[in-house]
Amino acid sequence: MRKNYLLTPGPTPIPESVNADMHQPIIHHRTPQFEKLLEEVRQGLKYLFQTRQDVLVLAATGTGAMDAAISNLFSSGDRVIVINAGKFGERWGEISKAYGLVPIEITLQPGDSINPQDLSDAIRNHPNARAILFQASETSTGTLMPTREICALAKKAGMLSICDGITACGVVSLPMDEWDIDVLITGAQKALMTPPGLSMIALSERAWQAHATATLPRFYFDLARERKMQNKNQTAWTPAISLVKGLHRSLRMIQEEGLENVFKRHELLARATRAAVQALGLEIFAAKSPAPSVTAVKIPEGIRDGKHIPRIMEEKYGVTIVGGQEELAGKIIRLSHIGYCDRFDIITAISALELTLNDLGYRVNFGKGVGAALEVFATYR
Amino acid sequence: MRKNYLLTPGPTPIPESVNADMHQPIIHHRTPQFEKLLEEVRQGLKYLFQTRQDVLVLAATGTGAMDAAISNLFSSGDRVIVINAGKFGERWGEISKAYGLVPIEITLQPGDSINPQDLSDAIRNHPNARAILFQASETSTGTLMPTREICALAKKAGMLSICDGITACGVVSLPMDEWDIDVLITGAQKALMTPPGLSMIALSERAWQAHATATLPRFYFDLARERKMQNKNQTAWTPAISLVKGLHRSLRMIQEEGLENVFKRHELLARATRAAVQALGLEIFAAKSPAPSVTAVKIPEGIRDGKHIPRIMEEKYGVTIVGGQEELAGKIIRLSHIGYCDRFDIITAISALELTLNDLGYRVNFGKGVGAALEVFATYR
Repeated sequence: MRKNYLLTPGPTPIPESVNADMHQPIIHHRTPQFEKLLEEVRQGLKYLFQTRQDVLVLAATGTGAMDAAISNLFSSGDRVIVINAGKFGERWGEISKAYGLVPIEITLQPGDSINPQDLSDAIRNHPNARAILFQASETSTGTLMPTREICALAKKAGMLSICDGITACGVVSLPMDEWDIDVLITGAQKALMTPPGLSMIALSERAWQAHATATLPRFYFDLARERKMQNKNQTAWTPAISLVKGLHRSLRMIQEEGLENVFKRHELLARATRAAVQALGLEIFAAKSPAPSVTAVKIPEGIRDGKHIPRIMEEKYGVTIVGGQEELAGKIIRLSHIGYCDRFDIITAISALELTLNDLGYRVNFGKGVGAALEVFATYR
Repeated sequence: MRKNYLLTPGPTPIPESVNADMHQPIIHHRTPQFEKLLEEVRQGLKYLFQTRQDVLVLAATGTGAMDAAISNLFSSGDRVIVINAGKFGERWGEISKAYGLVPIEITLQPGDSINPQDLSDAIRNHPNARAILFQASETSTGTLMPTREICALAKKAGMLSICDGITACGVVSLPMDEWDIDVLITGAQKALMTPPGLSMIALSERAWQAHATATLPRFYFDLARERKMQNKNQTAWTPAISLVKGLHRSLRMIQEEGLENVFKRHELLARATRAAVQALGLEIFAAKSPAPSVTAVKIPEGIRDGKHIPRIMEEKYGVTIVGGQEELAGKIIRLSHIGYCDRFDIITAISALELTLNDLGYRVNFGKGVGAALEVFATYR
């Protein structure tokens, strides 16, 4: 008998109450009940995005909303600056190219965050670029990006700031209106604690103006049509009804906890995780700007094949974390603390990591990592 | 946001699959579907009880089955020897008196197990007693009792052995037939990982013979009537249908894991718990014969009011354990490892205990208790 623990950056664990709501009998979407549900969801999303703009709910996962951002705001041949800090930054480049845009990529060393000076230089060198595409948190490396600074530079240059907040929204504060984020995107299966299948996107006034003249073809992701329908508390196409029910519950949980507390909780869990792995003698991968969503840790010297760590943690201990992707495979592990995760999930993950490192012959003083995490929990205010 | 962890000796945590089965649409009980369900439940219970006898399922919690054992096997004025090692032993005395029996109580110091010599003496002094009533595991003190020896002494003296196995059955091996246990009782909400509302009872041939001549009045708990019906895969009265569905799933889980592995798992969790609390400088309460179901721990000197420990663990950390009852209130805490509990639940409970002891001013070297538990998990075979 074994329980399973999910510490992956999406899907994240689903709260029992979200599951319970989704398992209620399904309702039809062209009904007053669904309209009330969507109305409350839309209010909750405005609170989460800290915006007066409409936050649109799409029946698609996060990449769908990224696709929508490109196809709704640009025309073939448009130049865009892409901050490529890892796998998800790279995806902005791929989508741009697929739609015939010309991406100017700033490619960072894995684990590095953007230096605002480098971004200023790129803006100066490409004054006709129409937008800056970036991740608020680059999930593949566990790096937090300076969203506020990026958006300020974009605004000053007359460019749109397009922020993939998929593993940041609901983890760190991303006040869309205050920071002039022109497009903010997130997905259901991260801090929103709902199974995958929904993404959310909001556009600033400037972004809606760009939409008006953008000529790329679009249909399922036509955001103007969506906005018109969602302002009537309906959706343009059939919505993912049960997922909307789950989202409704998770947004209520976030509202009850309060956004500030949600951010503090993620920060606390990230601090404890970092303290624990460092106490075990391991190094944080994105040490200069670690994300509070996911902690990437370097595989220590002496562990021959780093891929064994997630495998043993899952197969032997039932604790699912992820390793690195592509060139980082076998070089890092990533522990997520997004969403429905509490301090004892961190304790469990660190305990399983201690056992696993010991299994692999790495010298572990049992309890040292956990002790450091407990110390953070006992003292952090 | 906080998750809740239940480390109490009943109710115990319910596995997701048991919950899912119970939430299926309810079926009617006078149907072939229910009969198939009960047939499989009865097979599963025979495996759990390690018996060829019928194991009857009652729509009542554990005390109901204890009541049934008395009212079905005795007549007013019968003498019975009661091993009173705590609150549940005391209950045998109370039920006996309520039915006009004459209990001869062997009252032990809390935390002590019965000395077979003392039981032999009681048998010699009361040769006309008809039965020995006892707990295989006394939950109130976390003490394991020598069931095999007790039953052997009872058999030799021509007395019935009546074993409350409520927190032992499915935790330690209690082979009913091999050990000549005349009556074995358990409840759904312990190792059977099902919500409270069901109890199970099996009688040996000798016990059924006693039933034939017992004159105490009984109706709802008439075991002969139940046996007749349950041998047709029906129940005498309306069964608790959804609970039977849950029990069906939990028995399947136990069969898939295998009884020997179930016992090993409980032993491992108990060892780790004992190692952890001792590493924190605390003492095991029933040190000579600790139960693998629940570990009772003495409140350390310097903690002024021991009742604060379970209160803080629950209110501040979401980890529910229990304190002592009656004269043990404020003197011990009890951590359960019965049923759907894995090593990381123990790690969580010990972590919460470390934080709580620190909150109360007890000097804690964070990670020391957890480290000792991890050491057990890493080395125990």
